[in-house]
Amino acid sequence: MAHITVDPTIPGIRSLFTFRPETGGPLTRLAHVLLHGESPLTKGERELIAAFVSHGNACTFCTMSHAAAARHHFGADKDIVDDVVYNGNHTRLSPKMQRLLAIAEKVRRGGRIVTDEDVAAARAEGAEDRDIHDAVLITAAFCMFNRYVDGLRALTPTDPDVYVPMGALMAERGYVRD
Amino acid sequence: MAHITVDPTIPGIRSLFTFRPETGGPLTRLAHVLLHGESPLTKGERELIAAFVSHGNACTFCTMSHAAAARHHFGADKDIVDDVVYNGNHTRLSPKMQRLLAIAEKVRRGGRIVTDEDVAAARAEGAEDRDIHDAVLITAAFCMFNRYVDGLRALTPTDPDVYVPMGALMAERGYVRD
Repeated sequence: MAHITVDPTIPGIRSLFTFRPETGGPLTRLAHVLLHGESPLTKGERELIAAFVSHGNACTFCTMSHAAAARHHFGADKDIVDDVVYNGNHTRLSPKMQRLLAIAEKVRRGGRIVTDEDVAAARAEGAEDRDIHDAVLITAAFCMFNRYVDGLRALTPTDPDVYVPMGALMAERGYVRD
Repeated sequence: MAHITVDPTIPGIRSLFTFRPETGGPLTRLAHVLLHGESPLTKGERELIAAFVSHGNACTFCTMSHAAAARHHFGADKDIVDDVVYNGNHTRLSPKMQRLLAIAEKVRRGGRIVTDEDVAAARAEGAEDRDIHDAVLITAAFCMFNRYVDGLRALTPTDPDVYVPMGALMAERGYVRD
């Protein structure tokens, strides 16, 4: 049971958005722009960063939902998602994405440990300002979303089948439901 | 120097909001609602949580700016802010705020370590759902803002005098500058 009284029929973070729509609005808008808006990173790459960070933070709801969205984007290559998120195997990703995930892992642990060398290594593989910005902000945002979900113990389904249609909807429609 | 090319005349997180206004919009809106909107917690208490969490995450810019805003709100009692943020002395706070800061410290380290007992202890001192929600989300949000600022190494003034007018503006006008 959640730490506060929320609608028990709504899984995960959406129960918290419903509890407090005034903050739910900017939070969904942020997720939509970051993961579904314009970026040099593909939507699949961005969902993959979200799932990777969430797994690092041990947030089951965000890991399972964003891994499902990433698999939907990756299509026939969806095994890459499980390689990266659950098996720590990044070798099938582009060198640029490998460097960005290394930065993401540092940001997850604490922003101050990112070095000039980390950033230079990403740039050497083709990352530009927007790639670096988006990787850092997606990571930072999931350090928030993960804590929001687990700090209030939002309902977390454990059946993987629940996340398949959820991930498809997230991948196809994004996060703002007009 | 920041890790990406931002306006070098703008200190801290606002240089990142300017770099990417599409995410800057929802981020400033979130800060405004959380810290300046309606809540059972006073604005001073909320800025204090923000500064306390930012200090725990070693984010100098967010600590100094939100401590300045909190001091502005606390007025004659502004020494409480330094007691809490820099000296770890919470004894002058209400019992409810002491319990909420204990929850905030756990959420900062990881959402999953908050226990039923932590929440019950806060409720025993008068905290209701909205107090708990707001304390958790402010903490989670600053785990994002801190990583965004430091992960991209945004310009961080070290002169405390820079933060006095900044904190006053934040306290009086909030975060959305229309």
